[in-house]
Amino acid sequence: MVKRRRIVVLTGIRSEYDILFSPMRAIQEHPNLELQVVVTGAHLAPSFGYTVQQIEEDGFPIADRIESLLDSDTASSRIKSAAIQLVGLVQTLERVEPDFLLVCGDREETIMGALAGAYMNIAVAHIAGGDIVVGNIDDSVRHAVTKLAHLHFTISEESAERVRKMGEESSRVHCVGNPALDRFRLLPSLTPEELSERLDFDLTTGPILLAIQHVISSEIEDAGRQMRITMDAIAELGYKTLISYPNSDAGSREIIRVIDEYAQQLSFVKTYRSLPRLEFVNLLKMVDVLIGNSSLGILEAPYLKLPVINVGNRQKKRQHAENVIYVPHDKESIKQAVQFALTDQEFREQIMSCSNLFGDGYAGEQIARVLADVQLGASLIIKDWAY
Amino acid sequence: MVKRRRIVVLTGIRSEYDILFSPMRAIQEHPNLELQVVVTGAHLAPSFGYTVQQIEEDGFPIADRIESLLDSDTASSRIKSAAIQLVGLVQTLERVEPDFLLVCGDREETIMGALAGAYMNIAVAHIAGGDIVVGNIDDSVRHAVTKLAHLHFTISEESAERVRKMGEESSRVHCVGNPALDRFRLLPSLTPEELSERLDFDLTTGPILLAIQHVISSEIEDAGRQMRITMDAIAELGYKTLISYPNSDAGSREIIRVIDEYAQQLSFVKTYRSLPRLEFVNLLKMVDVLIGNSSLGILEAPYLKLPVINVGNRQKKRQHAENVIYVPHDKESIKQAVQFALTDQEFREQIMSCSNLFGDGYAGEQIARVLADVQLGASLIIKDWAY
Amino acid sequence: MVKRRRIVVLTGIRSEYDILFSPMRAIQEHPNLELQVVVTGAHLAPSFGYTVQQIEEDGFPIADRIESLLDSDTASSRIKSAAIQLVGLVQTLERVEPDFLLVCGDREETIMGALAGAYMNIAVAHIAGGDIVVGNIDDSVRHAVTKLAHLHFTISEESAERVRKMGEESSRVHCVGNPALDRFRLLPSLTPEELSERLDFDLTTGPILLAIQHVISSEIEDAGRQMRITMDAIAELGYKTLISYPNSDAGSREIIRVIDEYAQQLSFVKTYRSLPRLEFVNLLKMVDVLIGNSSLGILEAPYLKLPVINVGNRQKKRQHAENVIYVPHDKESIKQAVQFALTDQEFREQIMSCSNLFGDGYAGEQIARVLADVQLGASLIIKDWAY
Amino acid sequence: MVKRRRIVVLTGIRSEYDILFSPMRAIQEHPNLELQVVVTGAHLAPSFGYTVQQIEEDGFPIADRIESLLDSDTASSRIKSAAIQLVGLVQTLERVEPDFLLVCGDREETIMGALAGAYMNIAVAHIAGGDIVVGNIDDSVRHAVTKLAHLHFTISEESAERVRKMGEESSRVHCVGNPALDRFRLLPSLTPEELSERLDFDLTTGPILLAIQHVISSEIEDAGRQMRITMDAIAELGYKTLISYPNSDAGSREIIRVIDEYAQQLSFVKTYRSLPRLEFVNLLKMVDVLIGNSSLGILEAPYLKLPVINVGNRQKKRQHAENVIYVPHDKESIKQAVQFALTDQEFREQIMSCSNLFGDGYAGEQIARVLADVQLGASLIIKDWAY
Repeated sequence: MVKRRRIVVLTGIRSEYDILFSPMRAIQEHPNLELQVVVTGAHLAPSFGYTVQQIEEDGFPIADRIESLLDSDTASSRIKSAAIQLVGLVQTLERVEPDFLLVCGDREETIMGALAGAYMNIAVAHIAGGDIVVGNIDDSVRHAVTKLAHLHFTISEESAERVRKMGEESSRVHCVGNPALDRFRLLPSLTPEELSERLDFDLTTGPILLAIQHVISSEIEDAGRQMRITMDAIAELGYKTLISYPNSDAGSREIIRVIDEYAQQLSFVKTYRSLPRLEFVNLLKMVDVLIGNSSLGILEAPYLKLPVINVGNRQKKRQHAENVIYVPHDKESIKQAVQFALTDQEFREQIMSCSNLFGDGYAGEQIARVLADVQLGASLIIKDWAY
Repeated sequence: MVKRRRIVVLTGIRSEYDILFSPMRAIQEHPNLELQVVVTGAHLAPSFGYTVQQIEEDGFPIADRIESLLDSDTASSRIKSAAIQLVGLVQTLERVEPDFLLVCGDREETIMGALAGAYMNIAVAHIAGGDIVVGNIDDSVRHAVTKLAHLHFTISEESAERVRKMGEESSRVHCVGNPALDRFRLLPSLTPEELSERLDFDLTTGPILLAIQHVISSEIEDAGRQMRITMDAIAELGYKTLISYPNSDAGSREIIRVIDEYAQQLSFVKTYRSLPRLEFVNLLKMVDVLIGNSSLGILEAPYLKLPVINVGNRQKKRQHAENVIYVPHDKESIKQAVQFALTDQEFREQIMSCSNLFGDGYAGEQIARVLADVQLGASLIIKDWAY
Repeated sequence: MVKRRRIVVLTGIRSEYDILFSPMRAIQEHPNLELQVVVTGAHLAPSFGYTVQQIEEDGFPIADRIESLLDSDTASSRIKSAAIQLVGLVQTLERVEPDFLLVCGDREETIMGALAGAYMNIAVAHIAGGDIVVGNIDDSVRHAVTKLAHLHFTISEESAERVRKMGEESSRVHCVGNPALDRFRLLPSLTPEELSERLDFDLTTGPILLAIQHVISSEIEDAGRQMRITMDAIAELGYKTLISYPNSDAGSREIIRVIDEYAQQLSFVKTYRSLPRLEFVNLLKMVDVLIGNSSLGILEAPYLKLPVINVGNRQKKRQHAENVIYVPHDKESIKQAVQFALTDQEFREQIMSCSNLFGDGYAGEQIARVLADVQLGASLIIKDWAY
Repeated sequence: MVKRRRIVVLTGIRSEYDILFSPMRAIQEHPNLELQVVVTGAHLAPSFGYTVQQIEEDGFPIADRIESLLDSDTASSRIKSAAIQLVGLVQTLERVEPDFLLVCGDREETIMGALAGAYMNIAVAHIAGGDIVVGNIDDSVRHAVTKLAHLHFTISEESAERVRKMGEESSRVHCVGNPALDRFRLLPSLTPEELSERLDFDLTTGPILLAIQHVISSEIEDAGRQMRITMDAIAELGYKTLISYPNSDAGSREIIRVIDEYAQQLSFVKTYRSLPRLEFVNLLKMVDVLIGNSSLGILEAPYLKLPVINVGNRQKKRQHAENVIYVPHDKESIKQAVQFALTDQEFREQIMSCSNLFGDGYAGEQIARVLADVQLGASLIIKDWAY
């Protein structure tokens, strides 16, 4: 009998878990793989919805809960929280002794996981290396993780190419597409009526906007002002708008403050701290325009044929499909772009045939298959410069 | 009057400090720069010579001492120690608020410094990016630091080219040469008689060997056995040999045990835990052959026209000059290579005209100049993919 | 010339700082003492008002800011936050090398400070040892600090006696009274009109209630329900009421949620996250009844001749003056007690001659004097069992 | 069926494990208890014999290994190591959710365990509270643990009395005797010939001395000099002497250095880093005199009728039986006391009828029984001042 390979998946926040969900399910269901989840960061923070509960409800086995998120808005607290994650993660890995540590994206838990794996001779598999989202520490972190990881699961061919350019050996690079797309297939569908009831907000008649705006780490001081501009645009447009709170980055509390201030005065606006996944996925299928700087707009909206108004620098230089319209932090520009996306016939047709740069919705299975099949040992652990 | 830029230099171990010494001196003496040193790791560990004392004697101002090195040999303890460094470093940077954080090489403090700087919007300057030393976590870490750092001071043109290939913008890359060479110029010379007295070991007649062998992180289990082979060769050669203890990596204690076992029985062998820098620099000028896998053999020996027998995989794929002979962990191969290096006339002539790949001994001044002159602000902090 | 003794004062939350303010001022003004403040915990958390700003405004020199408060409500997060404080504090003490570490009360930073001092051979001076507040981990912590501290500044004779009973030598015990009383003397007075304007809440006509209710660590699960009862009583009483948010303990977020829920619906209720000290001290002088379980009711209200309705177990077995009425978590009991306190003539006369168990408002000066005069060295550091 | 109570035992060093071994065995064998061990500190440090291996060989289930011991000799490193233990322990307790946390003695892991338990509402059971060993931080820590713990297992009636004097309720105090005595009963006996062979040191003819000398935390600077005096006495006495290395406290490395220096020159001296328990227990039964300041002399030697020369202040004020002779750090005093203990007929007779202050060798079973039977819940967790 084959010994099952043990995979530790590390997750620190709900947005990341949305991507990891499908690979986790696929690992759990693979006969030769064993899943253990390490939960940390914002998942365990009440201010960010205590989303560890979703992971429990999904039935994934939790190896350890590592409380780490400091109650702070400073840049220093973010990296200190990460150091606390690392201290805890080493303890977990020492006990669990996995064959792989699977991390995702460009967050502090991602690089902390990559470092723990690399130093402890545990193979690190990284989802979403090679992407570019200029204007953010995230890019530096994502690329640094690439240099530490042993396997790369990229979400596009362009990103795969960039990973190889950084000196990574081709055999380590697997373009599997964006695992977040898998959940549109995996999760059940709700009707507009059902969703309206669950959200206590009428979604049966449109148009409906969804706004998600995160902090840019190099523009922390401006976070509140930038959110205010977006909220002004939303206020003047007057459409039904759902607003999701941002990730737990330095500056995010300021954004939340601004959102709350407007939301209290605008009856057509509804805010969510952390929408349950089923509701969120169905919401994405129903909204007419996505506003803000969420990576959802780049990475998932094309699959859903959803128009996106990307505000500011956060996703600026990222490879994107025809559904994205870039605007600066300027009220009028945001308003015009929303109107255009809702009404321009040519644009709307173009979107319906929008290219699928980020895979076909089966990334999770492909990741599980590679983890089960790749040769373990020194050839995996010892990295060579590719060229 | 110009406000002086504040530079925090982070150092965790003597070998790294040997490289940082010249830049630190140059920063200290530059009229527009202010130096603060953060001392951590092996510098504060009695097992590794408590080398913080050298830093104090050199008259550098210490911002904080961050005790971090766990008394352990496991792979996990190395990264856990690093996490402890990071927690402490964040606290220091919050208080000191430097303009730059200067780190060096490929160690855990290097990447912890790079992460703290990158997340805290402090410009990270990195010495010795782009090098390759295959067979080691160190390469992954060094390249990851490159992706996090804002300024790159490379020790060779080849390394500068590799840094650019990883997507770093050319304007951030400065090939300054190896700062460790500067100290051969900066420190006073001793006569063989003086040095013999200081070391309590006769260096007035040769040949004299120097052996320095570190652990390879991917071959931790073999560390003791590998050292044993080198010691067998030294025992049979019978030449006067000085042996320096290895860096504080997982597995290093086992190497130390082997060294001590042989040293007790061989009268022509003398060991050092951590030789004072003045003595060490003068010793390097006097020895006839360097054995082991120290990066000294690659990076400094050419400048000194010193033959090097590099044992095993640690520096295997590294760019090197004509002074290096590569051998496997095999007693006879080591012995033959030493004899060849001591006696082969052609080889000895070739070495005397050995090429100077790693600079001219003025790296420290160049680094200080760039730190004083480079434009600060968003253009420095926000990184772009170069191509 | 006498070398000034260096005193590090450790503070983690505003309520504690209110007590430490007067000793800090007295230390700062004493010619033979030098003050350094270490700020940590809730002082640096936006959720708790980022009260480090008050410390800066008061002009105290800050040795380090140690971010430590985890964004969590669990019991585990409280002690993990404390461990993070301890890691940082050791680093600070290593750099600052104080003669004394002054801590206060029964919080996690108190015992972390006491441990750091005791192990590092720094004399620990403790304010408010020997008190009893049953039903809480706080008691255990306060007594444990007593066993670690080298000097005890008690707030009452009863507490001094209890400290001696625990085996502490009499020479170490100084009954100085409650330093929090000093600020009623030290801070300027505001008129009701001025204060009303600053608080945006009319205090010129009464009666005015002030409610402050903290979590009991052994009743965390009940925190929300208990607050709800108090809020129901306040709602039915209908008097002008100011409500202060609780300390950052596990469970406190739940209390805040309840407060906010009621406050949004009751026009005569006003909430404060963290009232500026000047306003708070003047408010205490003006309110007619204090409700909840704040130690203010026991320790400061008698000095102000202020009636207190103490709800639940938190201060139950504590030595108290005639101004305190104890009630269970029961709406009717709370309401009746408030009415009684506002209207019963005999009770109101009794309060005006209420005994001053907790000193005369000059504790800070006495503490500074002892710190300046006590004999340093082994006799201070090495503790003996008293009997 | 009764749900088994889960007991976490925390251990950080071999000397402490010697005491915990019997309770751990008794817990393991009790039908209603489940044992989980958390291993930390010196147990995981190569410099202190990596004694976690003994725990594994004894077959105890290990919940987590928490690497924590810094490679340092400073006072600050000791408490920083403790803070690292605490961070890890919280993570373990969150996962394991025990009913009890059992800690022992007066070490840093003891108080860290007590704090974690007290704040996390896990009942803390403490072995060896109420003892007094003046001249040491240990006393303060032991008493502080008493104030945090919920159950007290004292080793003598005198200590039980002291625990009650500190305000602990009588119902929480159980005088069970010293569990370390149990192992003289539990472990098999070796003949002098067998032991001689195992130790590579002839124990078949006497007299045989055993020396164990630890650092006093308030006399760290003197540790080396004090050890030198003891070694001078041993050198001049000329008897066969076994010397055990000290605990991992600040200053211990200096003691080790002195021991090694003498041991290399004295053929009749043999040193041990960490003797296997079976050998150590049998050695204790065979030696003629114990020298130094180990608590063994006070706590276990009477049971074995073994004379003890206690040097210096470490155990000075401790309750002791007739077998202990106190001497200062003075060579001649040590020598005379050893000769007296070996030859004085009256003293030797007195020792044979030495009183058994510390129990009858069945402490482990009694502890397990209390842990299985005591009422859980609020009455256990919420502590009251006893009088």
